[in-house]
Amino acid sequence: KQPLARSPPPPVVHYRLNNITATADPLKNRETFLILTPLARFYPGYFDNLLKLTYPHDLISVGFIIPKDSTGNTAARQLQERIKKIQALPEGQRFASITILRQDFEPPLSSQLEADRHKMDRQRDRRAAMAKARNALLFTTLGPTTSWVLWLDSDIVETPPTLIQDLARHDRPIIVPNCYQRFRNPDTGKSDIRPYDFNSWVDSEQAQALAKNMGADDILLEGYAEMATYRTLMAHLYDGLTEPDPDAHKEIFLDGVGGTALLVKADVHRDGAMFPPFAFYHLIETEGFAKMAARLGWKSFGLPNYLVRWNCPRTT
Amino acid sequence: KQPLARSPPPPVVHYRLNNITATADPLKNRETFLILTPLARFYPGYFDNLLKLTYPHDLISVGFIIPKDSTGNTAARQLQERIKKIQALPEGQRFASITILRQDFEPPLSSQLEADRHKMDRQRDRRAAMAKARNALLFTTLGPTTSWVLWLDSDIVETPPTLIQDLARHDRPIIVPNCYQRFRNPDTGKSDIRPYDFNSWVDSEQAQALAKNMGADDILLEGYAEMATYRTLMAHLYDGLTEPDPDAHKEIFLDGVGGTALLVKADVHRDGAMFPPFAFYHLIETEGFAKMAARLGWKSFGLPNYLVRWNCPRTT
Ligand SMILES: Nc1nc2c(ncn2[C@@H]2O[C@H](COP(=O)(O)OP(=O)(O)O)[C@@H](O)[C@H]2O)c(=O)[nH]1
Ligand SMILES: Nc1nc2c(ncn2[C@@H]2O[C@H](COP(=O)(O)OP(=O)(O)O)[C@@H](O)[C@H]2O)c(=O)[nH]1
Ligand SMILES: [Mn+2]
Ligand SMILES: [Mn+2]
Repeated sequence: KQPLARSPPPPVVHYRLNNITATADPLKNRETFLILTPLARFYPGYFDNLLKLTYPHDLISVGFIIPKDSTGNTAARQLQERIKKIQALPEGQRFASITILRQDFEPPLSSQLEADRHKMDRQRDRRAAMAKARNALLFTTLGPTTSWVLWLDSDIVETPPTLIQDLARHDRPIIVPNCYQRFRNPDTGKSDIRPYDFNSWVDSEQAQALAKNMGADDILLEGYAEMATYRTLMAHLYDGLTEPDPDAHKEIFLDGVGGTALLVKADVHRDGAMFPPFAFYHLIETEGFAKMAARLGWKSFGLPNYLVRWNCPRTT
Repeated sequence: KQPLARSPPPPVVHYRLNNITATADPLKNRETFLILTPLARFYPGYFDNLLKLTYPHDLISVGFIIPKDSTGNTAARQLQERIKKIQALPEGQRFASITILRQDFEPPLSSQLEADRHKMDRQRDRRAAMAKARNALLFTTLGPTTSWVLWLDSDIVETPPTLIQDLARHDRPIIVPNCYQRFRNPDTGKSDIRPYDFNSWVDSEQAQALAKNMGADDILLEGYAEMATYRTLMAHLYDGLTEPDPDAHKEIFLDGVGGTALLVKADVHRDGAMFPPFAFYHLIETEGFAKMAARLGWKSFGLPNYLVRWNCPRTT
């Protein structure tokens, strides 16, 4: 304590949201990106890839949220070690700032007792918990000067280094690349790819009809035979399996989006678009987010031929 | 540019949301409050009252959002002048920090052309714009260490100086005092009070039935004869008109809340509770917020006998 020293008056900061642009050429305007990653498991590949992004790192802030449980303890330790090294790198490589949040609630149990519950109920609880984690991260790290938010899962280990510029160039409120997984194809014996994220889709009349007959709290989930939605999944629209050189910048309109890699103009979030942890038009989490954004007048787009790679924990 | 100087590595900040408590005795835990005020008009009385709050000012941050139009220009000028003086005050009087945001969209027009539209449509547009302003303010100022958010309209000119402690003491996720207006009663010739905020209410079966027959985008509004809701309005539950010394801490449960003065635990917002600018269960803005919080498991309460005073622009 220094009773005689008078500390300087606390800051008054004035921001014109008007001047915070989010344009097709973000670098020209020195627009800032906030990369947000919920992180339950630490993948070194995520950080190797992060460091390779060519958008100026001094215009990128990064935020993580880690679950409260013991898996989270391990992840937090690994994360802090890596972050320490990253932020000690010279200017140009290190990032503008890094925030690490530790959740205050445990992830939903998957105990023996829980095993009896229907897997769709568990899926709903898991996605509700993920939605709350994303919201806590978003509400506490989004600043008045953030132009864009890039959601990136911790198991995304390979993207083009120009990911940020490539996605921003489309100048869309919400845009998602196609998330693929590399694997050794047993039929050919060669390295191959297969789709991974099934949350990016175009809605179907069948799914709408299913929703109509649901209870107020029920949600539609993708990938359950007993709940066939007949939605058009972007995962299946990659042209590279049949065409030699598909247009990576082909756009499609989407009704639902996944969160593995998801670029959002900060104004979409500022208007109030968050990740509903409850049934919102029978949708939850990232899919509910796309619906909420649509209610606010913001459209979602997907790039079926622009691939990012997911890391399968068992194969690497 | 100083090519040889190496700036220090950017900060890595680590927060345990677990340690950010919001308790009945906030001072004991040195919990931080964020006071958020959408401000279209500047009332000196708001600031006189703010300065009188006895909760330690170094634990209070304040955030304003001002509309983009010419009314906003005037308000911004008056606000900045006053803030400059406030933040130059000695420690103990000035606040931890003050953020001023300028909106990037114009408030909805109330032009001649608009006059033909039904007043309920205009009311909906106005509340949607208010909701977006509140969200932009909330999403960009809520920090990882904020314990509580106090929403306070700029026309609130008189509260008990212990407002923060008094409301927090109830240890409720969401709590609202009763907002009253002073006026000269023409019948008695004396100064009197009358209720002002009609957004704090307990739901009714009639309102539920009205909602049931509405279109998906329609909203229920309080105070229109053609849409009688029969809700129990907290505004009418003040006991001080009949009892000499009513219990200021009497609590009631609420389904809808107003935003004139509204204390919220930051965790409620972090979970994702925002101010829906669209019909959410046929509710909008602060009333929609209470509903959304309820969907997230957070209950709302009101203090019908705890009064704060609203400033009528025409009478002062
Ligand atoms: N903070 C937090 N992150 C989580 C939690 N569960 C998973 N994650 C992270 O959230 C992202 C998506 O989770 P993941 O298990 O890969 O889900 P999937 O890809 O939908 O199967 C990944 O980055 C995980 O590391 C959780 O309970 N809390
Ligand atoms: N930022 C912003 N604030 C507004 C706008 N309209 C009103 N306000 C402020 O929001 C609060 C509520 O508005 P007011 O006109 O008093 O609404 P009422 O009390 O519901 O009649 C007050 O603090 C106003 O100064 C707007 O368009 N933008
Ligand atoms: Mn994953
Ligand atoms: Mn008012």
